[in-house]
Amino acid sequence: MRELTVELGERSYPIYIGSGVLKDIAAYFDKHGISRKSPLLVVSDESVAGLHLPGVMASLQEGGFAASSFIVPSGEKSKSLSKLEEIVTAALEAGLDRKSAIVALGGGVVGDLAGFAAASFMRGVRFVQIPTTILAHDSSVGGKVAVNHPLAKNIIGAFHQPELVLYDIDTLQTLPEREVRAGLSEVVKHGLIWDASFVQWCDDNAARLLALDPEALEYALYQGCRVKAHVVSQDERENDLRAILNLGHTLGHALEAVAGYNELLHGEAISIGMVGAAKLAEQFGYSPEIHTVTLGLFRKFGLPVTIPAHMDTEQIIRAMMHDKKFKEGAIVYVVPTEIGKVEIRKDVTADQVRQIVAFLKGEG
Amino acid sequence: MRELTVELGERSYPIYIGSGVLKDIAAYFDKHGISRKSPLLVVSDESVAGLHLPGVMASLQEGGFAASSFIVPSGEKSKSLSKLEEIVTAALEAGLDRKSAIVALGGGVVGDLAGFAAASFMRGVRFVQIPTTILAHDSSVGGKVAVNHPLAKNIIGAFHQPELVLYDIDTLQTLPEREVRAGLSEVVKHGLIWDASFVQWCDDNAARLLALDPEALEYALYQGCRVKAHVVSQDERENDLRAILNLGHTLGHALEAVAGYNELLHGEAISIGMVGAAKLAEQFGYSPEIHTVTLGLFRKFGLPVTIPAHMDTEQIIRAMMHDKKFKEGAIVYVVPTEIGKVEIRKDVTADQVRQIVAFLKGEG
Repeated sequence: MRELTVELGERSYPIYIGSGVLKDIAAYFDKHGISRKSPLLVVSDESVAGLHLPGVMASLQEGGFAASSFIVPSGEKSKSLSKLEEIVTAALEAGLDRKSAIVALGGGVVGDLAGFAAASFMRGVRFVQIPTTILAHDSSVGGKVAVNHPLAKNIIGAFHQPELVLYDIDTLQTLPEREVRAGLSEVVKHGLIWDASFVQWCDDNAARLLALDPEALEYALYQGCRVKAHVVSQDERENDLRAILNLGHTLGHALEAVAGYNELLHGEAISIGMVGAAKLAEQFGYSPEIHTVTLGLFRKFGLPVTIPAHMDTEQIIRAMMHDKKFKEGAIVYVVPTEIGKVEIRKDVTADQVRQIVAFLKGEG
Repeated sequence: MRELTVELGERSYPIYIGSGVLKDIAAYFDKHGISRKSPLLVVSDESVAGLHLPGVMASLQEGGFAASSFIVPSGEKSKSLSKLEEIVTAALEAGLDRKSAIVALGGGVVGDLAGFAAASFMRGVRFVQIPTTILAHDSSVGGKVAVNHPLAKNIIGAFHQPELVLYDIDTLQTLPEREVRAGLSEVVKHGLIWDASFVQWCDDNAARLLALDPEALEYALYQGCRVKAHVVSQDERENDLRAILNLGHTLGHALEAVAGYNELLHGEAISIGMVGAAKLAEQFGYSPEIHTVTLGLFRKFGLPVTIPAHMDTEQIIRAMMHDKKFKEGAIVYVVPTEIGKVEIRKDVTADQVRQIVAFLKGEG
């Protein structure tokens, strides 16, 4: 079992990563000030609830916690204001008060949705993350929570840090293969922005990771969380440094929006986005090897590296203009300068993006 | 013109109160860092927009600001998640970015709704309040923003401080008489919780206030904002002291909820609530004079002091249980101990509340 602290002053919190963590859920809750006097609400989705909710509820009840649960359909569509309203209904019916906690049991969708519910219910109650996907190693660090709007992803949200994160890698063993690959995309991203030796480790251990080898997984998730935690600690509100976490995301989010949030998984979309950013690096005079290595790496993980031909280029560009990374009239773009290092550029033009999109569609 | 600062460290902000303030809107925006590079969105409601929106938009455009507007129907029903979603649509269509500001032009409903939009759009953009009601002197200080849920008022929200508040008392001259009375209810409340001499001044100047005498209004709003700002400065997140601002609100919110948010104005509901709290004070051994004075004062302002007979007592109690002031199983109730002073009691029972409700329905 590995432990990590996200350093955010009085909002600091621990992440526990390991096998069997969930068996001790009540002890962890006690240790981190979750009160037995106030009811809890566990939010999960249909796929995760079937596998892990009964165990979590039983452990909580045995530990003396009064917990109710609320289950949303699986998938990005649940990240909506209408689901938020339903969670608030459930919270009111379960009698939650200001000292209650909302617990997210699931992947990034459940974490973002339940997290925004925790941020806004009664103007903010406690929040606990229990990630059950690889991808959620990313969203469970840093406190960014949000729901989607039909026109833009993650556009309605808050910064709301959890009290603790319980990452039980046993829950990852039931993940569908496609989600494993997509989740590893963010793990690799954390290497690409910060740590060349971890990129090399990912390249060497791709097969072990894809086979869900527990030791490899624990190490990779620890490293991924560590990079993210380090960046977030230095820039909680995304004023500057934190933007480097968006490598591959400017394009990735646009692809997700154009695809209607279901054709591409988030990890797949940013895989394409990172390959695009590596190609863009060439235009700014950086080594073409960045693109070669990035492409090889994502291929090794079986992730998509091209834009589906049917997606309209201008629609993609328009979706990028709506993205939060579009700041005061210029596209903000994270561009790699070597493997393990990136820079934030504010001079990327719509035409340059058009060229990259064409290249990624195989037209360039 | 009077100026006041709400002291909240790096989130401190000024309130300008006076006649003609809105003519200089562009200068105030400049002074307080609202950027011309990023588009603004002015949110207003149908009644206020007809009177004041063209002037505000013209002043902003003459001052070189790119501003769009979004108008919601007047009334509490607009404080909903679906209106929030519409504002976000408007913000995206107007091209707002992270450095943009959302401006609330209107009363408490518009301030709460636009404020929550500013708090959650892109996880938080700048916010400016332009209150156009007397009641909004209260909601424009302290950063509490929220929308309603069908089961509870203000239950989904955030703490989000504005950059500045521009309070132009000229906009108050067109207020309907019923809203004037209801607004003055919160002004009087600020006296009742903090400042006996201001209560006396209100008693002496009730007629001038009801006649919208500019000098009296400017003074009363300044005093009301001053008390609120002082309390909020000491307790931004409502951990303890700030709860005193809820005098009359535990019952008041329940009455609004049971009435379906339209029979009673907020100021009317808390007027009844404050009379009830004054009666409850007797049960805790405080002087019966508190009730006599409170009753006389609200009658002088033409405000309701009894609960409409058709409202069901048990429904009122249940609505109170859903209120945010219901903390860990006990009702938190603000009770006056003398005129100008209150205490926060956590030992009020449902039975005591039943008695007060019966009394206020004329059954006691």
